[in-house]
Amino acid sequence: MTGAEISETGTEDIDAAILEIGGRARAAAAVMADVPEAAKNAALHAAAAAMRSNEAALLGANARDLAAAADRGFNSAFIDRLTLDSDRIKAMVRSLEDVASFPDPIGSVAAEWTRPNGLKISRIRTPLGVIGIIYESRPNVTADAGALCLKSGNAAILRGGSESFHTSRMIGDSLRNGLKAAGLPQDALQLVPMTDRAAVGAMLRMNQHIDIIVPRGGKDLIARVQEESRVPVIAHLDGNCHVYVDAAADLDMARAVTLNAKTRRPGICSAAETLLVDKRAHNSHLAPIVNDLIAAGVEIRGDEAAQAVDNRVVAATAADWDTEYLDWIMSVKLVNGVDGAIDHIEKHGSRHTDSIITEDPAVAERFVGAVDSAIVLWNASTQFADGGEFGMGAEIGISTGKLHARGPVGLEQLTSFKYVVRGDGQVRP
Amino acid sequence: MTGAEISETGTEDIDAAILEIGGRARAAAAVMADVPEAAKNAALHAAAAAMRSNEAALLGANARDLAAAADRGFNSAFIDRLTLDSDRIKAMVRSLEDVASFPDPIGSVAAEWTRPNGLKISRIRTPLGVIGIIYESRPNVTADAGALCLKSGNAAILRGGSESFHTSRMIGDSLRNGLKAAGLPQDALQLVPMTDRAAVGAMLRMNQHIDIIVPRGGKDLIARVQEESRVPVIAHLDGNCHVYVDAAADLDMARAVTLNAKTRRPGICSAAETLLVDKRAHNSHLAPIVNDLIAAGVEIRGDEAAQAVDNRVVAATAADWDTEYLDWIMSVKLVNGVDGAIDHIEKHGSRHTDSIITEDPAVAERFVGAVDSAIVLWNASTQFADGGEFGMGAEIGISTGKLHARGPVGLEQLTSFKYVVRGDGQVRP
Repeated sequence: MTGAEISETGTEDIDAAILEIGGRARAAAAVMADVPEAAKNAALHAAAAAMRSNEAALLGANARDLAAAADRGFNSAFIDRLTLDSDRIKAMVRSLEDVASFPDPIGSVAAEWTRPNGLKISRIRTPLGVIGIIYESRPNVTADAGALCLKSGNAAILRGGSESFHTSRMIGDSLRNGLKAAGLPQDALQLVPMTDRAAVGAMLRMNQHIDIIVPRGGKDLIARVQEESRVPVIAHLDGNCHVYVDAAADLDMARAVTLNAKTRRPGICSAAETLLVDKRAHNSHLAPIVNDLIAAGVEIRGDEAAQAVDNRVVAATAADWDTEYLDWIMSVKLVNGVDGAIDHIEKHGSRHTDSIITEDPAVAERFVGAVDSAIVLWNASTQFADGGEFGMGAEIGISTGKLHARGPVGLEQLTSFKYVVRGDGQVRP
Repeated sequence: MTGAEISETGTEDIDAAILEIGGRARAAAAVMADVPEAAKNAALHAAAAAMRSNEAALLGANARDLAAAADRGFNSAFIDRLTLDSDRIKAMVRSLEDVASFPDPIGSVAAEWTRPNGLKISRIRTPLGVIGIIYESRPNVTADAGALCLKSGNAAILRGGSESFHTSRMIGDSLRNGLKAAGLPQDALQLVPMTDRAAVGAMLRMNQHIDIIVPRGGKDLIARVQEESRVPVIAHLDGNCHVYVDAAADLDMARAVTLNAKTRRPGICSAAETLLVDKRAHNSHLAPIVNDLIAAGVEIRGDEAAQAVDNRVVAATAADWDTEYLDWIMSVKLVNGVDGAIDHIEKHGSRHTDSIITEDPAVAERFVGAVDSAIVLWNASTQFADGGEFGMGAEIGISTGKLHARGPVGLEQLTSFKYVVRGDGQVRP
């Protein structure tokens, strides 16, 4: 760690401290850009070993954070996310080892061609530089995000929620020990030691030393970061995902996919929030799907057609169509075919992930062509919107931005590139 | 055109007018995203034909701008950039036809793979959306940038320098007529009718309707845009490019490449500004290269070694190493081998374009690996840093940013992507 916890500090002192962290990260990034994959993998394995052997100390640090959080009256979901146990530590260790096993994107040739004048142009993947991660009190983000930044040759500045301070510091120490053991600069991974919110502001302004900010957390955090940041941000604000069931949908498939898209894990960003049903499938598809959802414990907020299915369906308000519930709630309405679905998603969607269920390829292609979301699925659950499920390995998050990274943000999305041009004395006419 | 020239307007009115332009651009972008290549090419060819047949009117509009500029006492370089003649109009027409001949990036599959569960994932190129172009009084930018945005399926909002107002409007009308002739929305290309600087500010704040800003012009313009913009910016601020002549350089090649890198066109961003010579090549290489440059009319600002070559060499000051002259001036110094060159470029370079001249492949690879610039050349002139020379067709500019586009920004760099996932009913376990 770069210093002791500072809990009462003036804003100027915080700015100066963050600037110093930034300068050290920039210097470490220059070294990390050019280290062989073996050294980065050695650092990850050493960090995994350190974390495994420090399990008792890690649980102790976590107990300290948990006690403080309990005193401050956080709810059980918050406490659950903050809690480590032996299994969760094993999962973090495994994720470090997984990232070590992914191919190193750095130095790989993304494209290569030769010009008529003999110049050979190569587009080579390089690290982005310094990545700032701002996240809430989820200890695993420290390990996962730190490992992804390390493997992609970047330096990371991590600022986790203050309630996970001791736990995150212990995890960060394991990663820094791993870097040291592999002969790499420890400053490639730094945790911000200040719990003040002003430290976040200082990071968001430090565009000379941070190349990109990745916020991980709830909507308030993302909104604040997107509003204040002078550094480019990769994130998504909302995951208001839709399932559209077309008249040509296979009913069994539509039932299974909708149920999975909503209920597998209702609290993740790729959970479906709104079900749109083709009005031509009103009689055939609407009731079976809505009844499945109700049976699974989902509250349905629907239009008149949905309300007619079951008296437990409540009337949807205008706000429902724009709401990401992240909960056991789903809004349901009839639309006028695929074009009605496209219109609704254009107006109310968040350009994250949307799915169409249909057996008609022409209708499906119309949907995937027109829906302007990072991920558009045909006959599959929205919950596949995930770097691991895409085969990209771990991810640092999902981006709905149109620049640089869109969809799952894995190792390759944490890189930039440069052109290397090899000649034999060419001058330009 | 969307309206008459408005020269005296309140800031609120300007904000409202820009917002209206933005809303129309957003609607047009949704249409443009999904039109076939043939329609876009037809629009470009129709625009080229319109411009060709309107040559007299275009020269008349240009004469009006030139007369106003002469009254306001602009210098001859400014007047030259603003001036159209028959050849320059032909060049613009040709550039529209060239862009029509480039392959359409939209809809192409950048990557495709199948997961073990049968999900077929495709990464499909899509337009960025709405691109704002802010530029100085260079009429050809209206045609070139407009054509690139149109072919890449984006909507463009163009705000050129006020001194080229009538000329740019006439060029914009040709493009809009082309769009209309091809049945495409004219609002895919809009010129901002206000000459007030406040209109630029309104564009830079309008992140709900503009996805990316591309500034084209001098350093003051770029700096203002980068500082003020709430919309992501693709640009470069400086092109402080270096040529490093290693001890293992072929002397003839080093002379030819350095002379070309400086003098072919000293005013473009890829012109070399600083020559670094390996101190082990002091006796063999320094004098011949410096003498070539002096004979060509280049003022040399050098360290002691360079001053010893010729009494016309003046002493470089500390500021010289950070200066992009864009003129017949070059700074020259000895460095301690390739690592000295890398250090100097790290401290003083602008991460745009840098070149090494050497016959030693190991030294070359050390340089291209360590120099963190968008374009790094080995045995070739820095003036190849250009989209056309890279074989990418026309370019809208060069980016030194690390996110999204780096190096020449051509059609492909004006795109985003989405993931299309095709399944047969997969649900996530």
